[in-house]
Amino acid sequence: MKATVYVTIKENVLDPQGNAVQGSLQTLGFSEVSKVRIGKYLELQLDTNDRAQAEERVKAMCEKLLANTVVEDYRFELEG
Amino acid sequence: MKATVYVTIKENVLDPQGNAVQGSLQTLGFSEVSKVRIGKYLELQLDTNDRAQAEERVKAMCEKLLANTVVEDYRFELEG
Repeated sequence: MKATVYVTIKENVLDPQGNAVQGSLQTLGFSEVSKVRIGKYLELQLDTNDRAQAEERVKAMCEKLLANTVVEDYRFELEG
Repeated sequence: MKATVYVTIKENVLDPQGNAVQGSLQTLGFSEVSKVRIGKYLELQLDTNDRAQAEERVKAMCEKLLANTVVEDYRFELEG
């Protein structure tokens, strides 16, 4: 089973990396870009076929390691 | 218009960050995780309503700045 995890910075938290990228895009002439937010995208291969259990386990992975829930949100999809 | 960009490491390129996360997950007891690949997830706010043009522009942004096409793949979605 494959899990795809998206970790994003919470809406009210500053994203200096995103601001830097936005500045670079402006410098390159992409003036239409008014905002950039950067997050993480993770693909996990799981050796299990139990969807309900996988959902619980991936949630635990996010809470414990993959996301810093103080400043980040996460969501994930399971397939296979 | 909003663009969501996914930048991933090409399949045949090593992902040391992913390997480190996999090791940490194993240490935490998530032994079912057999592979981890980490990429970037970007949300861009674009001040335009021309979808065709936006598609071309976001492609140019990816090629020029957002992805290193030697070792990374990218794909994006437009909405709004």
